Amino acid sequence: MTARTGRHFLQIPGPTNVPDRILRAIDNPTIDHRGPTFAELGREVLAGIKTIFVTDNPVVIFPTSGTGAWEAALVNTLSAGDAVLLCETGHFSNLWREMAGRLGLNVETLDGDWRHGADPASVEEALRQDGGRRIKAVMVVHNETSTGVTSNIPAIRQAIDNAGHPALLMVDVISSLGSIDYRHDAWGVDVTVGGSQKGLMLPPGLSFNAVSDKALAAAETGGMPRSVLDWRPMLDAGKNGFFPYTPSTNLLYGLREAIAMLHEEGLEAVFARHARHAEATRIAVRGWGLETLCQSPNEHSNALTAVVMPNGSGADDFRKRVLSAFDMSLGAGLGRMTDRIFRIGHLGSFNDLMLAGTLAGVDMGLQLADVPHTRGGLDQALSFLAKTSAEAGA
Amino acid sequence: MTARTGRHFLQIPGPTNVPDRILRAIDNPTIDHRGPTFAELGREVLAGIKTIFVTDNPVVIFPTSGTGAWEAALVNTLSAGDAVLLCETGHFSNLWREMAGRLGLNVETLDGDWRHGADPASVEEALRQDGGRRIKAVMVVHNETSTGVTSNIPAIRQAIDNAGHPALLMVDVISSLGSIDYRHDAWGVDVTVGGSQKGLMLPPGLSFNAVSDKALAAAETGGMPRSVLDWRPMLDAGKNGFFPYTPSTNLLYGLREAIAMLHEEGLEAVFARHARHAEATRIAVRGWGLETLCQSPNEHSNALTAVVMPNGSGADDFRKRVLSAFDMSLGAGLGRMTDRIFRIGHLGSFNDLMLAGTLAGVDMGLQLADVPHTRGGLDQALSFLAKTSAEAGA
Amino acid sequence: MTARTGRHFLQIPGPTNVPDRILRAIDNPTIDHRGPTFAELGREVLAGIKTIFVTDNPVVIFPTSGTGAWEAALVNTLSAGDAVLLCETGHFSNLWREMAGRLGLNVETLDGDWRHGADPASVEEALRQDGGRRIKAVMVVHNETSTGVTSNIPAIRQAIDNAGHPALLMVDVISSLGSIDYRHDAWGVDVTVGGSQKGLMLPPGLSFNAVSDKALAAAETGGMPRSVLDWRPMLDAGKNGFFPYTPSTNLLYGLREAIAMLHEEGLEAVFARHARHAEATRIAVRGWGLETLCQSPNEHSNALTAVVMPNGSGADDFRKRVLSAFDMSLGAGLGRMTDRIFRIGHLGSFNDLMLAGTLAGVDMGLQLADVPHTRGGLDQALSFLAKTSAEAGA
Amino acid sequence: MTARTGRHFLQIPGPTNVPDRILRAIDNPTIDHRGPTFAELGREVLAGIKTIFVTDNPVVIFPTSGTGAWEAALVNTLSAGDAVLLCETGHFSNLWREMAGRLGLNVETLDGDWRHGADPASVEEALRQDGGRRIKAVMVVHNETSTGVTSNIPAIRQAIDNAGHPALLMVDVISSLGSIDYRHDAWGVDVTVGGSQKGLMLPPGLSFNAVSDKALAAAETGGMPRSVLDWRPMLDAGKNGFFPYTPSTNLLYGLREAIAMLHEEGLEAVFARHARHAEATRIAVRGWGLETLCQSPNEHSNALTAVVMPNGSGADDFRKRVLSAFDMSLGAGLGRMTDRIFRIGHLGSFNDLMLAGTLAGVDMGLQLADVPHTRGGLDQALSFLAKTSAEAGA
Repeated sequence: MTARTGRHFLQIPGPTNVPDRILRAIDNPTIDHRGPTFAELGREVLAGIKTIFVTDNPVVIFPTSGTGAWEAALVNTLSAGDAVLLCETGHFSNLWREMAGRLGLNVETLDGDWRHGADPASVEEALRQDGGRRIKAVMVVHNETSTGVTSNIPAIRQAIDNAGHPALLMVDVISSLGSIDYRHDAWGVDVTVGGSQKGLMLPPGLSFNAVSDKALAAAETGGMPRSVLDWRPMLDAGKNGFFPYTPSTNLLYGLREAIAMLHEEGLEAVFARHARHAEATRIAVRGWGLETLCQSPNEHSNALTAVVMPNGSGADDFRKRVLSAFDMSLGAGLGRMTDRIFRIGHLGSFNDLMLAGTLAGVDMGLQLADVPHTRGGLDQALSFLAKTSAEAGA
Repeated sequence: MTARTGRHFLQIPGPTNVPDRILRAIDNPTIDHRGPTFAELGREVLAGIKTIFVTDNPVVIFPTSGTGAWEAALVNTLSAGDAVLLCETGHFSNLWREMAGRLGLNVETLDGDWRHGADPASVEEALRQDGGRRIKAVMVVHNETSTGVTSNIPAIRQAIDNAGHPALLMVDVISSLGSIDYRHDAWGVDVTVGGSQKGLMLPPGLSFNAVSDKALAAAETGGMPRSVLDWRPMLDAGKNGFFPYTPSTNLLYGLREAIAMLHEEGLEAVFARHARHAEATRIAVRGWGLETLCQSPNEHSNALTAVVMPNGSGADDFRKRVLSAFDMSLGAGLGRMTDRIFRIGHLGSFNDLMLAGTLAGVDMGLQLADVPHTRGGLDQALSFLAKTSAEAGA
Repeated sequence: MTARTGRHFLQIPGPTNVPDRILRAIDNPTIDHRGPTFAELGREVLAGIKTIFVTDNPVVIFPTSGTGAWEAALVNTLSAGDAVLLCETGHFSNLWREMAGRLGLNVETLDGDWRHGADPASVEEALRQDGGRRIKAVMVVHNETSTGVTSNIPAIRQAIDNAGHPALLMVDVISSLGSIDYRHDAWGVDVTVGGSQKGLMLPPGLSFNAVSDKALAAAETGGMPRSVLDWRPMLDAGKNGFFPYTPSTNLLYGLREAIAMLHEEGLEAVFARHARHAEATRIAVRGWGLETLCQSPNEHSNALTAVVMPNGSGADDFRKRVLSAFDMSLGAGLGRMTDRIFRIGHLGSFNDLMLAGTLAGVDMGLQLADVPHTRGGLDQALSFLAKTSAEAGA
Repeated sequence: MTARTGRHFLQIPGPTNVPDRILRAIDNPTIDHRGPTFAELGREVLAGIKTIFVTDNPVVIFPTSGTGAWEAALVNTLSAGDAVLLCETGHFSNLWREMAGRLGLNVETLDGDWRHGADPASVEEALRQDGGRRIKAVMVVHNETSTGVTSNIPAIRQAIDNAGHPALLMVDVISSLGSIDYRHDAWGVDVTVGGSQKGLMLPPGLSFNAVSDKALAAAETGGMPRSVLDWRPMLDAGKNGFFPYTPSTNLLYGLREAIAMLHEEGLEAVFARHARHAEATRIAVRGWGLETLCQSPNEHSNALTAVVMPNGSGADDFRKRVLSAFDMSLGAGLGRMTDRIFRIGHLGSFNDLMLAGTLAGVDMGLQLADVPHTRGGLDQALSFLAKTSAEAGA
């Protein structure tokens, strides 16, 4: 309708606001992906990305968005007809399940209510009952982007170990990587699936598989027919900083910058920043007398917050009005949560005043759309931010 | 100290937040400023800038920042020893006065208290007393950037006319152009001085003189010794879209874009947007129990708001803490207002949530710095924004 | 060693020199890929790309490089165990063959000598002998990037029709799209595979499948297990300008610009420009007394020229010295042509003086590396360019 | 007419081809020019620019193009009515003379034929005859951009010293800075005038005065009425990395990058590169049987080459055809050389193949425009480049 001025508030839980420094890096001439300059870039990002997954093993970088890396995890390690155990945590766990089904896998689901994380006890129980070791993999989403609920990955690992089960542990960290503490090696994960457009602050178009030795062994001899998603030529070429087919060179420029930026801030500081912003958001939600979708205090996501509409519906109209009136994109409820929740992304390249603007947009939207709520949520959130600011501590 | 993440809030009253569209335009290869492609650009910006000053006369574009255009106004039309009448409205009026003095002009000042605009009655009185017509120019700042107070230019024009005095009317619109309604021709101004880095949303480095026929006539035969700031070769070369010496080509790319953006939004809409954001800011200030420097309800600036520290000092510490804690730059008190006020810029490429973030930053800063204030200012401002949003009217 | 100055000459046959206009488009903030602004972008590029493939059917845009689109062509239409007929024309035809094998297809190859295009007579013969209609697809590379030889696609279509065979015709146009005349519908192709980083002047990271109704029908009910490369959800979501999973948003900004640029120049003019530059290059090669790899006058590629080393080897040393001395990347000989040829890319965003610089770099490299050659090639090429310049005709 | 493809060849002697790295630096958000982040930038560029002028004294950076710095040199040190001695070397020396005249200076000119540099003997003679020490400054252009002739600055210094004359030595290095060896301190220059858009590889919009203690002393107490060009507030504010009025912040980002790039290559290497490219250009000119405007073997410019049209005219038509046919901008003959010469810029961010493309464009233009010439110039230039390439020496 009217020309937009100022900066759009992209507060969906990814893609996130891409910093200028990364955009400018991407805006550099494409180079020969077979030449020596590229090899330096390749070696740098292939080494650097390991520090983000906290793994000593190689990480495969795919020139495609996260859904490709989901598929890669499955086709490299499993065979048609294999059984997998999937913890339902929300819409994205279910999309991954559907993908597994389309690829011919036999998915056994541990149903969830979308308001809690994956249940380690159920996983252990299911695996104990799998005497025939039919289950080849346990699939869990670390930070369920559709609900704002995280799952306890070390506890899932422990559950598998308790059951003495050899299944691979596959974890989707698409919306937690670079935002919430995650450790591929230390937590004993076999395949971790990541993407570029969330905590890594990049545009979409790159995705990742961190792999354990056990996963590599499975891929060496097994897996489904595959070509572009095959780890093996990736790992071979990667030893010299190259890729077996044309990589997404310009996004790799951005990846180099993103890794540098995360380390300049420090991963610990990055996680603490996300935790503080998430806490402020939850304070606002409570202050408005509203409910987060997540019902488990220990499982709140630090990357996004899903807010339940008090009347059970109207979230889509609310989001539409916020977009129209305040030029802010919020995340929709997905799947069974459609129209029932909206999601606030507070991850990536972000700071206190961007969060304040975001929460103010929600606050004004609640007024505009006549959503029943209590005044005061924003004020309480800001007081928290003020009290916990670096300056306050000084 | 800590790595900054997210976007800096540049809420000084200029330079303002430069939109990506303008930055990308500037980020284009420099071209031959004597070639046909440049001529098109030159013609386009020289024609376009007239629509912003609302004049049918030519506008001179200087490849330098606003201070150069201040000097150009003086050296093209006046001679050493000439008397000029200057309306003191704040720090920038005084800097212009000092410049006039350095250039050998004889400056008569109408003192001001920095909390009101120029007084038309005083201007009329001073001119009436100038029987010898010694005064060659009346110098006024339209929007005094150091105080957030505007002056009524048509009333000043009327005052000059009432006195039947031939003095030129010179107006500084550096921080109002593209933010607050201004009409060079209709308001009978002789020389208008503008800059690029405020409402035009450009980086600093370009400045402007809009000129009346009377000013041109003065320049044709008079003025001081001058070269780079001389209007005459500028006007000659400009007829063909060129400049007499190397222009700031890349900033002209940005200027073309800025003019287009202002017209896409519509100048009326641009001014209404600034008025609404200024009103919201004043509501916040009042809600905090604080005082704006401007004391005249009709003279509030729509581009910035200067806020008086309740204890009479501490503004610099306050700004420093806001910068440190929340990565927001606020404007300092200047000259006699040093440490007594801080200034909030709400002009240029801006929107509701950027304003909300800005006001939240001030709100949290007041908490952090223990500035005596009442809670509630931000909430009242947001309610006003919600009620007056485009969506609210729908 | 030494710091590079000036602009690198990226004269491999893709990725090509990305124009500033496209790089600046990519360097824009990522937006919500589920929102209305994205839908406009999506509709625009999905409609626009059809004009480049010259098809009225939909074109699927994958957020991955060309190899993914190769795989998509196969997995959407064929089943494990299906036979396909592949025309060997060079290294890339062979990589596609290997991929088909890895996916469980039964590849029958029509061997080639890498110096001629695919032979329609052999195709017709092979299909006539396939009485059982085991062959489900004929796979041809339109412009073999490894050799600089094109294949006559309409003649292949005719051959299939002559044999009355129902096999699908699949054509790789990765290095011809946007450089050499190609018409998906008119030429009766079933699946055309394209990429972004050649004639489309984009960085790598997007690829395409143009599809016939027949191919769509095959995909509807058949194909292999697949998910990210599945056409069906792509076509569904695409009706509204969306994608079933996160697209490569920023590259789509570039694609919109690339399509606009091709039409501003005019596709006919684009093809004529490539033809003229290719002719100039061949004149230079002949003038140097060297041989192109392509031996068939009607099959020379207009996108690149492969030059045979006169002594049968040394191409890699030659390329390395050209890179080191003149900062120009040339294409290597691949597969069985390793070290025997070098390839000059003259496609994409290119003009006469860029070609002149490129040929000068080859000319000086021949001197530096003591490659036996006749002087004069460059001069003859430039005379041709001068005579055929737009200005010459004026 | 037709859409341009590929990269424009900007081969005027400035503005030069701005490297991507510098354009991307400029394309960053403008910051508060009164804040701590700016102070770091300011200190860095104010220190860095001294290394380019090779001076221990401060260098003033003006937010305007070179003509402003010409004026600054005069108005800071001289008074109306002062005599200055100007060495005529071409169009730009004469423009500087005209400026001096407009500012009320009394210019005594040592006439030149535009084909040789300034004559030290004439300078010495003129100063010896100035018994009354009326002459306050000697004005010389180091590299006369309109002719491609350099002047021997140390010899001019020696001439002044021989005459025992106290005149200030003012040197314009606008088109030599960053391309041709120059040493403000070692050569005893009092005011050096530089610009951003030549060897510094920046867009136009910044200019410089390097100043000796003697010049500073003159400015402290003397000079003309001045304000924006006044050194004194610049030097004061600069001590802390600031500027007395709004600087051209975004161009300063570029300056920081430019200084870094020159040092990464090494100033000696930069000068050697320019010398080699200039020599190659002169070889081409000789090989075409054409004449350079410069007639003195020791005074050839390494930044540009001016070529005399063999028939005495037609240069403008020639340039126009080259622009139209080959998208290359060449420099025009200026002043008395109008239409009689064209100028080839080979300075700034440049390399062998860019030069080869440039010379090829001239070569083809000579053919197109039927300019009488001998074939072979380009070939000889390329042979020189090949023989002297880094690789050749290996």
